[in-house]
Amino acid sequence: MTPSPLNPRIRSQELHHHIGETVRLAGWLHQMRRLGRLNFLILRDGAGTCQVVLTDPQELAKLKGLQVESVLAVAGTVVAEPQAPGGVEVHDPHLTVLSAVSEPPPFELNKPVLKPNLDLFLDHAPIGLRHPHKRALFRLFAALLAAFREFLDGEGFVEIQTPKLVGSATEGGANVFRVDYFGRPAFLAQSPQFYKQIMVGVFERVYEVGPVFRAEPHDTIRHTNEYVSLDVEMGFIEDHHTVMALLARLMRHLLARLQEQHGAELALLGVALPVIADPIPILHFRDAQALIRQRFGEDCRGEPDLSPQHERWLGEIARTDYASDFLFVTGYPTVKRPFYTYVDPQDPTYTYGFDLLFRGCEIATGGQRVHNYAQLVAALEQRGLNPADFAYYLEAFKYGMPPHGGFAIGAERLLMQLTGVENLRETTLFPRDTSRLTP
Amino acid sequence: MTPSPLNPRIRSQELHHHIGETVRLAGWLHQMRRLGRLNFLILRDGAGTCQVVLTDPQELAKLKGLQVESVLAVAGTVVAEPQAPGGVEVHDPHLTVLSAVSEPPPFELNKPVLKPNLDLFLDHAPIGLRHPHKRALFRLFAALLAAFREFLDGEGFVEIQTPKLVGSATEGGANVFRVDYFGRPAFLAQSPQFYKQIMVGVFERVYEVGPVFRAEPHDTIRHTNEYVSLDVEMGFIEDHHTVMALLARLMRHLLARLQEQHGAELALLGVALPVIADPIPILHFRDAQALIRQRFGEDCRGEPDLSPQHERWLGEIARTDYASDFLFVTGYPTVKRPFYTYVDPQDPTYTYGFDLLFRGCEIATGGQRVHNYAQLVAALEQRGLNPADFAYYLEAFKYGMPPHGGFAIGAERLLMQLTGVENLRETTLFPRDTSRLTP
Repeated sequence: MTPSPLNPRIRSQELHHHIGETVRLAGWLHQMRRLGRLNFLILRDGAGTCQVVLTDPQELAKLKGLQVESVLAVAGTVVAEPQAPGGVEVHDPHLTVLSAVSEPPPFELNKPVLKPNLDLFLDHAPIGLRHPHKRALFRLFAALLAAFREFLDGEGFVEIQTPKLVGSATEGGANVFRVDYFGRPAFLAQSPQFYKQIMVGVFERVYEVGPVFRAEPHDTIRHTNEYVSLDVEMGFIEDHHTVMALLARLMRHLLARLQEQHGAELALLGVALPVIADPIPILHFRDAQALIRQRFGEDCRGEPDLSPQHERWLGEIARTDYASDFLFVTGYPTVKRPFYTYVDPQDPTYTYGFDLLFRGCEIATGGQRVHNYAQLVAALEQRGLNPADFAYYLEAFKYGMPPHGGFAIGAERLLMQLTGVENLRETTLFPRDTSRLTP
Repeated sequence: MTPSPLNPRIRSQELHHHIGETVRLAGWLHQMRRLGRLNFLILRDGAGTCQVVLTDPQELAKLKGLQVESVLAVAGTVVAEPQAPGGVEVHDPHLTVLSAVSEPPPFELNKPVLKPNLDLFLDHAPIGLRHPHKRALFRLFAALLAAFREFLDGEGFVEIQTPKLVGSATEGGANVFRVDYFGRPAFLAQSPQFYKQIMVGVFERVYEVGPVFRAEPHDTIRHTNEYVSLDVEMGFIEDHHTVMALLARLMRHLLARLQEQHGAELALLGVALPVIADPIPILHFRDAQALIRQRFGEDCRGEPDLSPQHERWLGEIARTDYASDFLFVTGYPTVKRPFYTYVDPQDPTYTYGFDLLFRGCEIATGGQRVHNYAQLVAALEQRGLNPADFAYYLEAFKYGMPPHGGFAIGAERLLMQLTGVENLRETTLFPRDTSRLTP
């Protein structure tokens, strides 16, 4: 048997533990600088990059005709070199070509900034995602999911995975994708809303990380048609403020984890973590509209929702008045919130529904829910919906549900606001919109 | 403001830390034993159950007409009582009814064993899942997902979330659900196979936990049409044995975590954890067929796959010959494995594809993949598939992919084999099959 070029292998970030040793590395030919006799090869692996110094013409010859992104195994000696990136480089390499690339990629992956426009990038995402900026971005995405679960596990929540194929549209609405289910119609879940509420009856506190599907026909920079929803639901709350307090602590935890464990990615992307006031300021919907009128001159009183521009203005108000990048808006009008939203007993025009705005953009929606069976049936009927169509959902309420509430965070939206990119498609691994189903 | 019956509240498993104190609890009326002046109320919350002793007629009167599953808040004094379940009970309770239930549930939730048949249970899963056995089962499910991620995070894998709406059927096959995507056809992903391979080009090591969809028209006790797939893919492998070694260590980790952290659930369900030999025995497909013939008299040589009965027999062989509940079968025939499976260079009849059998049932499928661009294009053509239909997938290979491989575990299937239940629908929260789309 020939000795393997891959075994044992170390990854680039471990190099500095092996100074003076001969090691094996493997990765992609990220960049090549030819300076005559001295040649610098940057090798990129899953962990990062490292510099390999090539002088031997026989080794150099192995790279003849190879383009960047070729896959190489490198055996060489680790040398401390203050001039090299990371303070260490590999000398006297022996190369093995694992995959030869013969054409240059459609755009450059080894420049500090990715140049192609969004469409060109997305068309070639399978290789564009290899760019160090993109890798950092989606490492942050993974970090957000991990920190989300970590926080909720610590709070006694149980993870659930609920079906995405459903027999009826979740909230009785439009904007739902139809599926041919063995000749019958089925739908793609717009949210795990009903299931997570049902599961409050089982575990009291539950969360889910999973895809949701919205057949919204309009393309905007802050919407896609499939995204990852971070869903939370908890029982035995006082009211929506119990839920908002949980969400505030969750946000603090997410930001702390990024700061502690992902400084390198944040630095590479030039991200300044947001300021999260304690407590996060809270504005009632009514007062938010009044402030918009007072500060920005637009009279939106009577409108049942906030527009993206309204949210941006409120983001400004949060920063100037409260020195906070976050702002809760509570009391969204009953007409615009789903039937299961708990209505304010003091003023039934408004609900105990809330949004969390982050830098002037909604990143989470939540609220207290109706938990009384008779009230829930009445709420359905009031909207012209047939309770029989919601039989399995209603069963949980017929047999006892506690006061409860929850929220959902759009994971890609959160990452978008956190990193300051302009389009949700930049923080979505393989985005889906009305014109894009591939890659 | 009236003082809240919920704040501050403790959960049932914390009771023994509060002996002699007055505490607030809340949960479901799990069971009521009336013995005249002495009455025992079992309260169930998200954490477990606890016993409340009722003597005051005024408090008892609050329960008049209430059925089990009513939601209650209880304020009372914690008393050590060796006779009580858990060694502690609550005396002198003050009750608040949060949700009154007026009808008994369709089957009993407070008996040690759930009695209804599977169909009746599934029809009423929203409340059936409240049974302590079911809660234990789905806590184990959550524990498996958490341990899966924990292990892979520790091995330098990056979590990804890939789209479930796709433009073409993953493996060029049938059994795919069609979606109406803004008037165009789209499909539900049968697996994240292509995306996880592409992402090996980005992060080298990736995993995903998410739903997959199989439009298989036949109902069996070990298939459903939507399930949670635990997907792993890693680059820079030697061959499929590198992948199998990772999977073996993962299985060990999962079992160790269940044992360390979920003894209570395992005990309640009467689960004996499996024996996992070190190393897990490996049989080549050819040898597996020969052994089946030799031991069980069925000559299946020439058949391109193993039937469920074959798998059961191999499970017996693994136990008798290797004292192992696990068995790897390698070298599945080329004709039955997808085009991207690495073909054995010594004998192209067979591949570097493998299955992991657990107690005589396949719980994971994996293998080494083709990483060479030209070979992959040739493999597609050989199967009569058009490489142009796989353009975005192929792009990753055109621009350099390392030797790689991976596997997928059916999460519900794993839990089924672990707990010894007979039907996959018992370990699926809300199962989907040809006849079931609700709840």
